[in-house]
Amino acid sequence: MRTPMKVLLTGANGFVARHMIEALRARGDATIGVDLAPTTANAPDRYAKCDLSNAAAVRELLATERPDAIVHLAAVSSVGHSWEIPAETFTSNTTLFLNLVEAVRALDLKTRILSVGSSEEYGIVPAVEQPISENHPVAPANPYAVSRVAQEMLSLLYAKSLGLDIVLTRSFNQFGPGQCENFVIASFVKQLLDGKARGETTVKMSTGDLSIVRDFIDVRDAVAAYLTLLDRGVSGEIYNVCSGTGHALSEVLATAAELVGVKTEVSVDPARIRPTDNPQIIGDNAKLRALGWSPRHTLKSSLADIIK
Amino acid sequence: MRTPMKVLLTGANGFVARHMIEALRARGDATIGVDLAPTTANAPDRYAKCDLSNAAAVRELLATERPDAIVHLAAVSSVGHSWEIPAETFTSNTTLFLNLVEAVRALDLKTRILSVGSSEEYGIVPAVEQPISENHPVAPANPYAVSRVAQEMLSLLYAKSLGLDIVLTRSFNQFGPGQCENFVIASFVKQLLDGKARGETTVKMSTGDLSIVRDFIDVRDAVAAYLTLLDRGVSGEIYNVCSGTGHALSEVLATAAELVGVKTEVSVDPARIRPTDNPQIIGDNAKLRALGWSPRHTLKSSLADIIK
Repeated sequence: MRTPMKVLLTGANGFVARHMIEALRARGDATIGVDLAPTTANAPDRYAKCDLSNAAAVRELLATERPDAIVHLAAVSSVGHSWEIPAETFTSNTTLFLNLVEAVRALDLKTRILSVGSSEEYGIVPAVEQPISENHPVAPANPYAVSRVAQEMLSLLYAKSLGLDIVLTRSFNQFGPGQCENFVIASFVKQLLDGKARGETTVKMSTGDLSIVRDFIDVRDAVAAYLTLLDRGVSGEIYNVCSGTGHALSEVLATAAELVGVKTEVSVDPARIRPTDNPQIIGDNAKLRALGWSPRHTLKSSLADIIK
Repeated sequence: MRTPMKVLLTGANGFVARHMIEALRARGDATIGVDLAPTTANAPDRYAKCDLSNAAAVRELLATERPDAIVHLAAVSSVGHSWEIPAETFTSNTTLFLNLVEAVRALDLKTRILSVGSSEEYGIVPAVEQPISENHPVAPANPYAVSRVAQEMLSLLYAKSLGLDIVLTRSFNQFGPGQCENFVIASFVKQLLDGKARGETTVKMSTGDLSIVRDFIDVRDAVAAYLTLLDRGVSGEIYNVCSGTGHALSEVLATAAELVGVKTEVSVDPARIRPTDNPQIIGDNAKLRALGWSPRHTLKSSLADIIK
């Protein structure tokens, strides 16, 4: 029988943490949530208040908790917002991560760290080179992506040269129940449901570029991947966390509208077009599948769950 | 006739700054030196005291000075030391750089920034792929190198997407008169001269791994390259600053010993062996040569100047 783990989650108030805490609890692991302002929303076993930008506070936290694993979800994670605050995005994301690994190193803990990165690290990749495998060079084209590549370089350094136990992900676009409406699918669904609630049969939508293709992965599949990586991932290795399938935003919108039972009339909002938007990102998940994981949700079944 | 520039140098008390200030003055440019503790050693036209880790102070400095160019030399620049303070190295090097570019952006200055990077960014490259051109992928293998790759990614972002005028270098091992004895060639010369001063005909040397091959470039050639890049470099482009020739440390030591007129007896100090030392780094300087620059010093003539 597997020995239950004590897992510390940063960014514990967030969307992914909510699902990660549920999944960890379901298999008997203990969860400690860390965030700036504890709420009871995601209900880990216990909250620990800690400002992760404070190195001394992080060290004190880890000296007390000595977790078996850290799932590092705290981050400035919006690409759009990162253009407004490029320096802050970079500094915040790298500093939080460095404070964690430096504390683990100073305390000589055996803690496994899940360093969550992003498909944005790949930058703009020609369609013929997709699906993108982990061996593809990175070419970050926005401030958020740059911060993630930096975190990744630091992860590899701390894992390979400084002996820490760090498993890395490049996580593609996660979506699912409970996501903040700043994210595209949640925004679509909200606009559709609001329109329907107002009795509209055709909903006027304000969107960004709908031709963009993304590899959307249901957050529950992503969380299952994170559990697999905590259990069987190899330290110093990077794993794409993705569905392996691309969908244009126009297809996502059409599927969601069909499920809600409305038609749509789209107007593109220039404010939602980003300086360097990426036409297509589809990932190759063979490396993760080789560990025994596979996705269980489809775009349509996930959208149905969100709408419900 | 060329209009003289007003050039702000960070790390103004350092070894490279000393030579850069001389070269700028020789062609009639104005120099403003910035460092934590102004000394008169390198004698720029004027010192401005500024803690570059303080974003508000940097913005105030640039609002007052409005330089035509910034030569950013301030950095934690020792690979060996970076293993002792990996997080500090990363944070310090990236924060100083971000404070500069954010100030230039906020003030909407047209300032050209020279973002100095390092050959260490390439990591361990098979000998058959050398000399290394700028198109070779980076693979930083020590904390200093990671900080430089991060600075480079930020430079490309600010140049290409945020419109700043930034020319990038990957500078190989610079050496020459006035270098601190923590650096390998200066350390060799000092040990040889000290031995000779004590009347020894055979000098006992404490060294690191002498089989290591590096592309040593005379600091005066590097500084001439930096002037070329300030004048004719293309924003958002990366230039190797290197001699194009590799020398083993054993060859450097033998040449220096011959010039000093002593024999050597070498013992390897394990403390000088680094966790992941790089057997060979030789750069390709064709891109910089295409701008009209070429090196004027040889290993032997440079060593003779240092010894003198």
